[in-house]
Amino acid sequence: VAREAPGVQVIDITHHIPPGDVRSAAMLLARSAPWLVPAVLLAVVDPGVATSRRAVAVEVLGPPAAVLVGPDNGVLLPAARALGGPSSAVELDASVVPRMPGTGATFDGRDLFAPAAARLALGVALESLGRPIDVATLVGEEFLAPAPMRDGAGRLVATVLWVDRFGNAQLNLRPADADTLGEHIVVTTARRAAPWPARRVRAFAHLQAGELGLITDSYGQLALCMCRASAAQILQLAAGDQVVVAKRAG
Amino acid sequence: VAREAPGVQVIDITHHIPPGDVRSAAMLLARSAPWLVPAVLLAVVDPGVATSRRAVAVEVLGPPAAVLVGPDNGVLLPAARALGGPSSAVELDASVVPRMPGTGATFDGRDLFAPAAARLALGVALESLGRPIDVATLVGEEFLAPAPMRDGAGRLVATVLWVDRFGNAQLNLRPADADTLGEHIVVTTARRAAPWPARRVRAFAHLQAGELGLITDSYGQLALCMCRASAAQILQLAAGDQVVVAKRAG
Amino acid sequence: VAREAPGVQVIDITHHIPPGDVRSAAMLLARSAPWLVPAVLLAVVDPGVATSRRAVAVEVLGPPAAVLVGPDNGVLLPAARALGGPSSAVELDASVVPRMPGTGATFDGRDLFAPAAARLALGVALESLGRPIDVATLVGEEFLAPAPMRDGAGRLVATVLWVDRFGNAQLNLRPADADTLGEHIVVTTARRAAPWPARRVRAFAHLQAGELGLITDSYGQLALCMCRASAAQILQLAAGDQVVVAKRAG
Repeated sequence: VAREAPGVQVIDITHHIPPGDVRSAAMLLARSAPWLVPAVLLAVVDPGVATSRRAVAVEVLGPPAAVLVGPDNGVLLPAARALGGPSSAVELDASVVPRMPGTGATFDGRDLFAPAAARLALGVALESLGRPIDVATLVGEEFLAPAPMRDGAGRLVATVLWVDRFGNAQLNLRPADADTLGEHIVVTTARRAAPWPARRVRAFAHLQAGELGLITDSYGQLALCMCRASAAQILQLAAGDQVVVAKRAG
Repeated sequence: VAREAPGVQVIDITHHIPPGDVRSAAMLLARSAPWLVPAVLLAVVDPGVATSRRAVAVEVLGPPAAVLVGPDNGVLLPAARALGGPSSAVELDASVVPRMPGTGATFDGRDLFAPAAARLALGVALESLGRPIDVATLVGEEFLAPAPMRDGAGRLVATVLWVDRFGNAQLNLRPADADTLGEHIVVTTARRAAPWPARRVRAFAHLQAGELGLITDSYGQLALCMCRASAAQILQLAAGDQVVVAKRAG
Repeated sequence: VAREAPGVQVIDITHHIPPGDVRSAAMLLARSAPWLVPAVLLAVVDPGVATSRRAVAVEVLGPPAAVLVGPDNGVLLPAARALGGPSSAVELDASVVPRMPGTGATFDGRDLFAPAAARLALGVALESLGRPIDVATLVGEEFLAPAPMRDGAGRLVATVLWVDRFGNAQLNLRPADADTLGEHIVVTTARRAAPWPARRVRAFAHLQAGELGLITDSYGQLALCMCRASAAQILQLAAGDQVVVAKRAG
């Protein structure tokens, strides 16, 4: 990017996505995007590189406006939706960007996506980088947060969207979803018969050692957490897992 | 910061502090600070976020001058002292910085400290960001290096201040503290009855494989080290541990 | 660098080289260098700091031109060769750069190499930073890729040059070296009697789960790989290991 667009500011968000973990990258990008725009957002977690998966650039009109660049494997769609939804998109034409001779086909991040992002940052038109595609065909619906459900007993059936590096397990619940449950709740996971008592709190430090909390996280979602410990590790939770959240009896 | 203060240069020092490890962050910031000033120094390891812990900006007159921004939990004080000591401070007023609606209260790094640091970098006056507080009330005395002690037998009783990523265990000793001990010394730890023979060296590579060394580290403190191995791991040492350093008999 | 050369753009390539692993750093720098030049390339993995190992700056005429700065322990030579070969070099004179008083001698990255690189980036002449040395005396021949060999049976005897963070094991083979072997091959390692069946592929995702692949990697070398798994971990391969690659029988 520095070579193609010397005056453009580059901000590295992370290089710590586990190899091939498209879901984590998609979640992280969607969470960060509102604080980054207006911008060209470049995201590359690309296990399908060199296959027929599409390379895309996706425009969000805003304001604030954004263009997202990367493989069409779901890494971009949640962020595009978080920013208001994609308005147009192109499949990147690899021939637009000259490759260094003698290299293999396994690093589009370096050879296609970054050069394309650099040009977009310089103001090059989206349409000059490839052929238009229908935004409805963009991959990634499976990474969008599902709506929370209630079971027959009125309990909340929630999905873990993301586990952060502190071990907080973000749920597909907004604060209002749990307001009827009150402060004292129980959380049931697939891996343990007995439910975990938990408490709705405003700060991590309001929890006792080992106590499970339900907190409004910095993205405005509810998350399971502990104070100076990893709730996800202790409850053995990973992204995609279901948990049941209910009012605590008596 | 890029949004609030577009022309300001941002240098990431590290994102590798273990979650919640205020002491490590405080040590690292104090070590780096002399090479960073004049600057606004932003440090966020903040397990008490959303509690009544204070959010502060601390000024050091210098020269070189600095303002340190972060939670008042000790992460800032050692660096402020290393730079000459705090001259004034304010408790940051969260209402000065507009928050993005719908977010939780658990990420002051993004929502308060970084925007405040950006404004300070632009030259905004400290006093415009909150109410003045007494610098004597700043938290963190427990992270300042204690003075080395001598026991009844004249041996040095030292504290491990910090373990770096190579496993070197920095002590609260300056080179002159150990000059009377000579080249051949012994180090006693709490976890092993027998003392470790060690040798005062100028370079890691002057140690044999498995030999324990006492070296003047790059910050001018004495540190326990090994050549291409982790002294802290082999001796089972962590920050805060005590070790006894003595002249080797015979 | 920001202090010595305020207008100069700094790009961090990585801080993830294992402590003391000069070979990995040399490989990574050589791989990245062609995409970074023209530039001053600063590389510090320096287990011999404070010994008599030389501190050097090495010039490559290009175009594109480069100066490489670091310890003369092999970390620079493969990159200098990848860029066309060193044309001149100096041993850095530590007295040219003032050190902060009271610090130890164990961090030339901060105290010598970075300040020297900053000055070179500003256009200071190489010769002003130290005395000229013969480029033929630069250390690092052992890190240059050996030529591939064939054994008596006509099989390729290859060396693992590098293992990336995905577990791909790059070999000292170019695509043409294996063209006579066809698509279906076998790979023999020192740690297992039975050879591994493998398949020449163009994309990671063309492999079945658990299937071993031989792919042209993004640097144009052949690499052993798996799809969403670490070939190096499963085959227990590390940089420097030998593997035998042969045509699969009938």
